[in-house]
Amino acid sequence: GNLTKITDFARKAREGGAAMAIFPEMAICGYPPKDLLLKDSFVKANLAALDQLAREQLELALLVGCVDVNPGKGRPLFNACAYIAEGQIKAKQYKTLLPNYDVFDEDRYFEPASETANCLVQGHSFGLSICEDIWNSGQGEISERYREDPVTHLAKAKPSAIINISASPFTIGKGKLREELLHYHASRHGVPIIFVNQVGGNDELIFDGRSFVVDAKGKVRARAKSFAEDLLFIELNNESKEVAGNLADPLEQPVAETYAALVLGTRDYLNKCAFKKAVIGLSGGIDSAVTCAIACEAMGSENVIGIAMPSPYSSTGSIEDARALAKNLGVQFEIISIEPAMQAFHSMLSGQFKGLKEDVTEENLQARLRGNIMMSLSNKFNYLVLTTGNKSELAVGYCTLYGDMCGGLAVISDVPKMVIYDLAAFINNKAGTKLIPQAIIDKAPSAELRPNQTDQDTLPPYPVLDAIINAYVEQRLKPDEIVKLGFDLKVVREVIDRVDRNEYKRKQAAPGLKVTSRAFGVGWRMPIAQGFRENLDNEKTAQSKVLC
Amino acid sequence: GNLTKITDFARKAREGGAAMAIFPEMAICGYPPKDLLLKDSFVKANLAALDQLAREQLELALLVGCVDVNPGKGRPLFNACAYIAEGQIKAKQYKTLLPNYDVFDEDRYFEPASETANCLVQGHSFGLSICEDIWNSGQGEISERYREDPVTHLAKAKPSAIINISASPFTIGKGKLREELLHYHASRHGVPIIFVNQVGGNDELIFDGRSFVVDAKGKVRARAKSFAEDLLFIELNNESKEVAGNLADPLEQPVAETYAALVLGTRDYLNKCAFKKAVIGLSGGIDSAVTCAIACEAMGSENVIGIAMPSPYSSTGSIEDARALAKNLGVQFEIISIEPAMQAFHSMLSGQFKGLKEDVTEENLQARLRGNIMMSLSNKFNYLVLTTGNKSELAVGYCTLYGDMCGGLAVISDVPKMVIYDLAAFINNKAGTKLIPQAIIDKAPSAELRPNQTDQDTLPPYPVLDAIINAYVEQRLKPDEIVKLGFDLKVVREVIDRVDRNEYKRKQAAPGLKVTSRAFGVGWRMPIAQGFRENLDNEKTAQSKVLC
Repeated sequence: GNLTKITDFARKAREGGAAMAIFPEMAICGYPPKDLLLKDSFVKANLAALDQLAREQLELALLVGCVDVNPGKGRPLFNACAYIAEGQIKAKQYKTLLPNYDVFDEDRYFEPASETANCLVQGHSFGLSICEDIWNSGQGEISERYREDPVTHLAKAKPSAIINISASPFTIGKGKLREELLHYHASRHGVPIIFVNQVGGNDELIFDGRSFVVDAKGKVRARAKSFAEDLLFIELNNESKEVAGNLADPLEQPVAETYAALVLGTRDYLNKCAFKKAVIGLSGGIDSAVTCAIACEAMGSENVIGIAMPSPYSSTGSIEDARALAKNLGVQFEIISIEPAMQAFHSMLSGQFKGLKEDVTEENLQARLRGNIMMSLSNKFNYLVLTTGNKSELAVGYCTLYGDMCGGLAVISDVPKMVIYDLAAFINNKAGTKLIPQAIIDKAPSAELRPNQTDQDTLPPYPVLDAIINAYVEQRLKPDEIVKLGFDLKVVREVIDRVDRNEYKRKQAAPGLKVTSRAFGVGWRMPIAQGFRENLDNEKTAQSKVLC
Repeated sequence: GNLTKITDFARKAREGGAAMAIFPEMAICGYPPKDLLLKDSFVKANLAALDQLAREQLELALLVGCVDVNPGKGRPLFNACAYIAEGQIKAKQYKTLLPNYDVFDEDRYFEPASETANCLVQGHSFGLSICEDIWNSGQGEISERYREDPVTHLAKAKPSAIINISASPFTIGKGKLREELLHYHASRHGVPIIFVNQVGGNDELIFDGRSFVVDAKGKVRARAKSFAEDLLFIELNNESKEVAGNLADPLEQPVAETYAALVLGTRDYLNKCAFKKAVIGLSGGIDSAVTCAIACEAMGSENVIGIAMPSPYSSTGSIEDARALAKNLGVQFEIISIEPAMQAFHSMLSGQFKGLKEDVTEENLQARLRGNIMMSLSNKFNYLVLTTGNKSELAVGYCTLYGDMCGGLAVISDVPKMVIYDLAAFINNKAGTKLIPQAIIDKAPSAELRPNQTDQDTLPPYPVLDAIINAYVEQRLKPDEIVKLGFDLKVVREVIDRVDRNEYKRKQAAPGLKVTSRAFGVGWRMPIAQGFRENLDNEKTAQSKVLC
């Protein structure tokens, strides 16, 4: 599939007069292939596709990302940029800096480059690099990991330009960060840099495209589309080092890029898993409303089904708000009451629960009965269930395992609650109408699992909660440092304890689209059975609550 | 907690006349600490505990595993063996070979050693190494990863012995493999080797202890307990290189060690997560019977609750078998019929499902209603739910997400079905009585989700299924290679396709105790949204079913 895409784009590039077409990191096999790389047949299929591409005789030079093997031995593997010209694979440049932090596991599969390959097109030489190779800017957390800076090494050969093929995942603000980074390298070395990024969603990761080119002064001279495939033509003057091309909208407003990322991530996950339709539980709250709007943009509203599942604790307003939302978005809407099942379980468990008060058990059960309905619809009609929990809830475990956590993809599980409000406003603003009814935006958040419940019965106000979670999870600050930001000691303690002790729920969560610098998921690897507690200054020394 | 244990054992060692006490890899902080290592406070607490240990003035030399930091900079970290004598930390030897495959992620956290530290006790020098450092034997998959062999390097200095502190996880047959490995190194270099291993369960991993010592000819001269903490005294003659000590039972029968491992893993997971009681759904089948017997051994039968949850499709035999099992094991037993909930859902979904035939939807729903009951009991009484699915089922997705997959720990999810039968026989044999009723062992496996259903309606016979799964998952053979082992091409194709397409279920599975060389779980990292298919010789070239 990728080979066909690459061939088609290369032909269009040739028709447009290009001397060379550049494709992203691992364009042949997709990124990240993870343990598929341990299958020799996968690596071979990737090399066969590369050979096929060379044999296509496309009459222009190609740079394309692929996996390469150690000749003869098979292993180790290399993350490679293949240079194809005149129907032959002329050279391969391997990746020098292998990221092995957060969501990245490249040391698990690859060896770093030990040599520099040459790429000569129409008499001009180009320095080749792959993704992480440009991220050592001499400052910041990433730079600390590496002793080398491949860009400085490549610049010494005075190339016409340095090319970087990437599979650089989206996080909020990453587009701007990349442009600043390449400004630094280009202006420092006086060399244009061409950045070519993957686009599309792969499980939790969303690749935002936004390929761009900076001139020898580091100024952005050409920019491809955000969150969509694109063919960007650029002209490079080897004498003046000037670069000419089109500048697409950089799409750098955080809420706009977050929305676009979630739409792309949702669409690609469903398509790649061969689902045509998605089903969403509509509670009348803002989380399911925003998830539903994203799903409609991703799949078309005719492919989204909204289900309201009221209990006796649901307010009439909630059902009406859900109905109004579904109508505004144009999605099929149905109401299935969970009351008969609640009654059935009440009688089934009456022996065991005799004389005991209702507690969180009965609340969780309601969420699980709703999960049962969603999964039944999924099984019967082949819908993918989209979960609607946000990052704030997932962080503190304000969600029910096997209940509202049921589903194939967690669309907004890396989006803090306050950003959900921003997304709702963005969605309505973009539509020019209140797609998401104002009542949904205005009401106090509630799980409606007992009478008159609101989230703030048990959680700090969301602006406070989100700020503490951001400090603890994304910025990795210590409890003391968070208190010093101005938060109440007791609240900080409570939030952190909740984050720590809900690891077991997150372990069984659906894959969630990553949009922040640190998401729960593949890049967050905490043990479950452990008792380490980061203590505050005025508490006694940190110690484990378990014995070994 | 670990510091107290280390101090207590060191005192006992001193009282027993030891000149040195050796503790395993990362004994101070536990292994694997995973992303706790990204918290500076965790690393600091570990160093504070090490300092405290040195200050204890225990009057013998100590070797103890810990995490060390790059002085001044803080990062990178090192996986270290600290040498403590005379109240001081005299030296630290860092780990040279950092495993970064299967369940290991050490490149994520650590830098390798660049120097060799010295350990001199009573005038005798010891070469120090950590876990993976001994695994380069010049052959086999692990050796291929590394260019260095730290043992050869250490042997050149002619030490009195080489010491290896380890956190080497259990897999079936690993004990024997380690003794063979150290026989190779010791006899090759003519040096005794002391292997000191962690014991206990940490999430999915079970550390089996079984520390042992080989003499300069590679013969095992002393061996500590399996799957239990132990203090093993050895005497080393520096002139003759002879070693004296006690030889505990190596416990190398696969079924015996698997049983012991699962008991330890279950006990430690419950204890470390602060659960006192476990609840298990008893179907009358062999999987739940074996799980229940393991839980009783781990926690005491007074802390295990068995629940039968019959539907109209359950045979009377199943309930009676479950009751008999519970009686034999001495566990509390209750029966909760799911029929009222089945009827409630039937009516709740009657509008949506009108005119449609019953299918897997209704089967899954039964499993999910049982899951709801288990989780309700868990919530109300603070029981940990133990799931009872085996590896054969999990491999091919013969299990219900949010149904029988509900639970905090999957006790037997890395145990193939045929080994479950071995475990049942072992349990009965060990007890000297039919703890697990013969009827449970003899009956044809069935999920009992529709009338007269058996597993073999939709799965190949278990001996065939297990062999194909073993070949594909553990041995990583290609489909063609598996067919060549003598299996039917169509069956191989079907099993492999089922393994591949059930990644999404395993993504949300409970942590499962690892006992084979390759378990689904933290060491199995497959993308979900992908369509790569390893084709057989007579099929067309491997290709993706998805587009990019």
